[in-house]
Amino acid sequence: MKNLFISDLSGHIGENIETSGWVHSIRDHKKVVFMDLRDRSGLVQVVGDSSLSKLSPEDVVTIKGLVKKRPDHMVNPKLETGSIEVELTNLKILSKSDTLPFDISKEELDVSLPVLLDYRALSLRHPKISAIFKVQEVVIDAFRRGLKEKGFVEFQSPVLIPESAEGGSEVFEVAYFDYKAYLAQSPQFYKQIMVGVFEKVFTVNKTLRAEPSVTTRHLTEVTTLDAEMGFIDSWTEVMDMAESTIVYIFNEIEKQCSDVLKLYDVTTPKVPKNIPRIKLREAQEIIFKRTGRDNRAEPDLEPEDEREICKWSLEEKNSELVFITHYPVSKRPFYTYEDPDDIGYTLSFDLIGRGIEWMTGGQRIHDPKILVANAKKRGVNVEKSELYMQAFRYGMPPHGGFSFGSERITMKVLQLENVRQASLFPRDMERIDIHLPTIKRSHETKKENIQDKQK
Amino acid sequence: MKNLFISDLSGHIGENIETSGWVHSIRDHKKVVFMDLRDRSGLVQVVGDSSLSKLSPEDVVTIKGLVKKRPDHMVNPKLETGSIEVELTNLKILSKSDTLPFDISKEELDVSLPVLLDYRALSLRHPKISAIFKVQEVVIDAFRRGLKEKGFVEFQSPVLIPESAEGGSEVFEVAYFDYKAYLAQSPQFYKQIMVGVFEKVFTVNKTLRAEPSVTTRHLTEVTTLDAEMGFIDSWTEVMDMAESTIVYIFNEIEKQCSDVLKLYDVTTPKVPKNIPRIKLREAQEIIFKRTGRDNRAEPDLEPEDEREICKWSLEEKNSELVFITHYPVSKRPFYTYEDPDDIGYTLSFDLIGRGIEWMTGGQRIHDPKILVANAKKRGVNVEKSELYMQAFRYGMPPHGGFSFGSERITMKVLQLENVRQASLFPRDMERIDIHLPTIKRSHETKKENIQDKQK
Repeated sequence: MKNLFISDLSGHIGENIETSGWVHSIRDHKKVVFMDLRDRSGLVQVVGDSSLSKLSPEDVVTIKGLVKKRPDHMVNPKLETGSIEVELTNLKILSKSDTLPFDISKEELDVSLPVLLDYRALSLRHPKISAIFKVQEVVIDAFRRGLKEKGFVEFQSPVLIPESAEGGSEVFEVAYFDYKAYLAQSPQFYKQIMVGVFEKVFTVNKTLRAEPSVTTRHLTEVTTLDAEMGFIDSWTEVMDMAESTIVYIFNEIEKQCSDVLKLYDVTTPKVPKNIPRIKLREAQEIIFKRTGRDNRAEPDLEPEDEREICKWSLEEKNSELVFITHYPVSKRPFYTYEDPDDIGYTLSFDLIGRGIEWMTGGQRIHDPKILVANAKKRGVNVEKSELYMQAFRYGMPPHGGFSFGSERITMKVLQLENVRQASLFPRDMERIDIHLPTIKRSHETKKENIQDKQK
Repeated sequence: MKNLFISDLSGHIGENIETSGWVHSIRDHKKVVFMDLRDRSGLVQVVGDSSLSKLSPEDVVTIKGLVKKRPDHMVNPKLETGSIEVELTNLKILSKSDTLPFDISKEELDVSLPVLLDYRALSLRHPKISAIFKVQEVVIDAFRRGLKEKGFVEFQSPVLIPESAEGGSEVFEVAYFDYKAYLAQSPQFYKQIMVGVFEKVFTVNKTLRAEPSVTTRHLTEVTTLDAEMGFIDSWTEVMDMAESTIVYIFNEIEKQCSDVLKLYDVTTPKVPKNIPRIKLREAQEIIFKRTGRDNRAEPDLEPEDEREICKWSLEEKNSELVFITHYPVSKRPFYTYEDPDDIGYTLSFDLIGRGIEWMTGGQRIHDPKILVANAKKRGVNVEKSELYMQAFRYGMPPHGGFSFGSERITMKVLQLENVRQASLFPRDMERIDIHLPTIKRSHETKKENIQDKQK
């Protein structure tokens, strides 16, 4: 098995080594041929004779060679291994590649997003693209680790759910033997049930939502990070936990992915010791004063409001993130706790940053009578969700939680333009791996061909 | 927020404390009333006056009180906190519970599995049942941690997939806007694609399979643990990694869950330094010699063969686990590598333990021509899986991997009888949370009632 990564070669100057990877590029100068060899850790220049000429980009090879320091004037400062090169002594080809549809040896891939996604198995190999998913790995792992350190228990929430009170038009339906099942849009009900078991819980889940529009910030399949905690004295404890979780994630990204931040020329969002917390109505008042735009009667922030309040937060509070609290009862799910000191408004929050929503959370109703009455008022038949109701019938503590998508946080930390860039295999209403209308068309064409032949 | 768990109280003798939890049981001796208070960490006896009489099981309370050492003859050796009790000074009721459908204060819940599952939100609170999911949490986390230590990268594999070469009758179909989508039965294709990106990868996923039968060991939704590694020199390296991963998991269970092992009166499976590895044909020969049962012409082990080979392994090799290798080509998926030294048989393995299969794995074909030819022979249209084929067209290293279900390993470590006991919210062809035929019947009854009224 390969046991030496390219990024480790600098520690082996003067040694004969063996390593493996993909041919990133070939520069053939006849007598001497240069190859950039790539593995997941980086690139290194390999110098050899014409035996290298037969290689093409993405061929998979194992090489043996001598690691040498480059002369000072030949150092490539852009490469981590730019001060060394490998003098080839042995080459073994493990796999040959077809001709590539585009050049992936460029520093920036200059292909459109649809092409990038149509060739996802290839484009993911580009160092700047795979780097996105090192950040995402850290986001997810830091979420888990940060909460475990705070005594939270991880659990597995189901993807298949029965007809549910949370339902609605954006739920995917599954043919389930003689029955109908649905795909979970969130682990909300299950994480509340689990508060009754483990008190403080978190879960990392695929959540599925039939988003009927193609936007730059929505996907139909998201890896969601969810936490829920019981025995709270105040809903602000939930916000505190959300805040410390986000900050923990940023710290881990800085520690583990400083190279990726540099590659993208970004920093994690600037936040002061305490992220500002303002009521929705205060935010609307601030926006009105700053822009003259009067959305004070609206139950939510418009996209341009989100951008404006982020500007305000950065200018006035030196924070790229801001909590907006107290959304009106009508804009939050039926299980959201109403503020007894501010009737009509909920103990809920969104975390907004760099112009868009990052996270949503709040305190939940734990009294089954109020929960059922509230659901009824909203036309929700919560009694259908049998296990959920059991949790409340058999004693639930005051509790709350929060939820956010791993793709969106990755996107916003790296300042990517489209959330699809932050999903390994993004799904939207027109794409599952490949562009669906194209597949459909090609199937239809085949069918027509068959019919033609039958005629 | 609650900041003291019951299991910590023994360290606070002589102190006034505050904690919260659920009323586990009440013993009313008129002048003095005993309550067992339960939280996720354990039980403690609370002594109070008649103010405790108004409480019922599963009420949620916050108590204040003085932690006292019990007299020696009053010590309850069964409880971790059996040498202390709390003298109640203050009681606050956070929630009242309905009357329970069964007594959950018994050491063993004596209700049938269907009832246990129908009341899952309640039965999960039983200490012996919640303990199962502490083990499962450790299984999953140890899988991740063990592989991260070995340089594997975690990735998120999708649940929604397009029509796929892996398909078949046991795939769930999803109504996806104007198209059809399917639920992933495994992350197999995606983890192979990701070997092309990160070389060594793992993923924890919900996998969905329309199992058309109700057995004690199958679920329709499973949390699957998958790993895949590139640049192998031999398929045995994959088996080595599978072995070290399983052993890592056992060690973590022993470290973190010794109390649960004791509660269930079990140990993790006994394994020697090297888990035995035998070819399927050798296993069949051994079984024939031991029992006279001649399954030597069969392409797979029958359930009774699995039990018998486990007996042999324990008796002869002192190992509760055994690798069975070299399944015939016809019994393995089309992407399985054929052994060049044993034509007709594959470089594949199953790990069998305590009478059933735990894990499956092997080396995969990395040459696209062989892959396509092999698929064709098997009637599989692999060209449909566009991204999967890309990975091979653009250069893949020799690779292999393994896969196992977190529920089954939890079940077998704790020697549970039914895999449903090891799934928080088990799904099978008749159950999603609640028994589906019952729901359907109740809907139909409602419909009939409406029709009756309309008449």
